[in-house]
Amino acid sequence: MLTSMDPRTGAERKAHARELLSLRHADAWVSTASNEGLAHLVPLSYAWDGRRIILATRPRNPTALNVQAGGRARVAIGHTRDVVMMDTVLESILPVKTAGEVAEAYAAQGDWDPRETEGEWVFILLRPVAIQAWREANELEGREIMREGNWLF
Amino acid sequence: MLTSMDPRTGAERKAHARELLSLRHADAWVSTASNEGLAHLVPLSYAWDGRRIILATRPRNPTALNVQAGGRARVAIGHTRDVVMMDTVLESILPVKTAGEVAEAYAAQGDWDPRETEGEWVFILLRPVAIQAWREANELEGREIMREGNWLF
Repeated sequence: MLTSMDPRTGAERKAHARELLSLRHADAWVSTASNEGLAHLVPLSYAWDGRRIILATRPRNPTALNVQAGGRARVAIGHTRDVVMMDTVLESILPVKTAGEVAEAYAAQGDWDPRETEGEWVFILLRPVAIQAWREANELEGREIMREGNWLF
Repeated sequence: MLTSMDPRTGAERKAHARELLSLRHADAWVSTASNEGLAHLVPLSYAWDGRRIILATRPRNPTALNVQAGGRARVAIGHTRDVVMMDTVLESILPVKTAGEVAEAYAAQGDWDPRETEGEWVFILLRPVAIQAWREANELEGREIMREGNWLF
């Protein structure tokens, strides 16, 4: 008999990851590294357009500076015991005022609109190249659901 | 009148941070950087001995390797909208079998005991040098509650 403690299949993990990616008003844990090898971590609201994670931040904060310098970020959504962990590459950084559909997607999924918020803001577009999804230790095996940018299921 | 939307005082934030640090069966988001400037992020169960965050991990996983090389980690506990964010320095890495009181503290606060778990495990002892605590945007101001290893409240 299957119980809630049984590990999920890859297809189930992928479906759940896509649900989490599409959640409204949700935040990601965004980890980046400076050129000096110092890790930064901060929670940021996200949107997902089917291919890219969209974040919004100030252009001079560590996340924007690190990702611009290094081109990569590691991003977690969900919770510590229901994780979707993504290794991402930077696709682009866009000023919010001229971001068009990206800004619409972000405002629709998130609970704020940086275009209407004081100060200078940019969108950071990150494309996942590897995704892992697991809940507890029994799901560490089989946690890989995307590799080299391709869903495995 | 105070409402739940009013920003907390520094003393309230410190008290809450200490509560979160002492939670049983809780996990931290642990962010480290490799010497090559690649960020790593992973959720790990933690304990707190009043001065140091205690994590347990395999000696060859990225968190252990990065923290050994760089001596630092950025660690978040709580949730994305109730964050305690810590910049930490590595104090030591201990094999679990000979860790004495550290192992006892970890087993008491966590929901597993690496001493009784197959394979090689180490404790990573991280000392916070800076701590920030905030919930929503209205608490970004005043979020600093520890600086240079000293509580501000």
